[in-house]
Amino acid sequence: MVLLREVIGSQLRHARKAQGATLRDISTKANVALGYLSEIERGQKEPSSELLSSICLALEISVSTLMRGVTNEAARIENQVRPIKANRTNTNSKAA
Amino acid sequence: MVLLREVIGSQLRHARKAQGATLRDISTKANVALGYLSEIERGQKEPSSELLSSICLALEISVSTLMRGVTNEAARIENQVRPIKANRTNTNSKAA
Repeated sequence: MVLLREVIGSQLRHARKAQGATLRDISTKANVALGYLSEIERGQKEPSSELLSSICLALEISVSTLMRGVTNEAARIENQVRPIKANRTNTNSKAA
Repeated sequence: MVLLREVIGSQLRHARKAQGATLRDISTKANVALGYLSEIERGQKEPSSELLSSICLALEISVSTLMRGVTNEAARIENQVRPIKANRTNTNSKAA
């Protein structure tokens, strides 16, 4: 079962680390306690919608951008998809 | 500001109505009080991740499917996109 708060948390952490920001940086900007932000990132707390918007603002990403990552990650978990080879060559087909 | 619970609520309602199910149908299947489900659909309550998964199960949609709709709707709200005409006819072009 996919738990939304776990996927949201991992995506928030991913977005923060991608920009080299610390928990302290984002907790200050979003006006949330550092320990609480850490619990959210670890999927242990459900952030309110207002707080989630504040964290997105602090990360300078839109809610829809966050949710796009959440959607993809949720789908990956649901399907247990393995990486797909980008370049599949069909050696049997020939152009006429 | 996009509030996630409002977008989730509207998408849950949309999914329920698309299959002609009543609030009673889904509240029974998801084991949630009818009034509470109605408040979730109206964006007035934040469902827990566990409850959201139960509602998705009752609606027979995956969490990622719900979140895909949420992503698109959130992006629409952020961009204030107006509906795009489905059938745009170019009366100036002619096939050679």
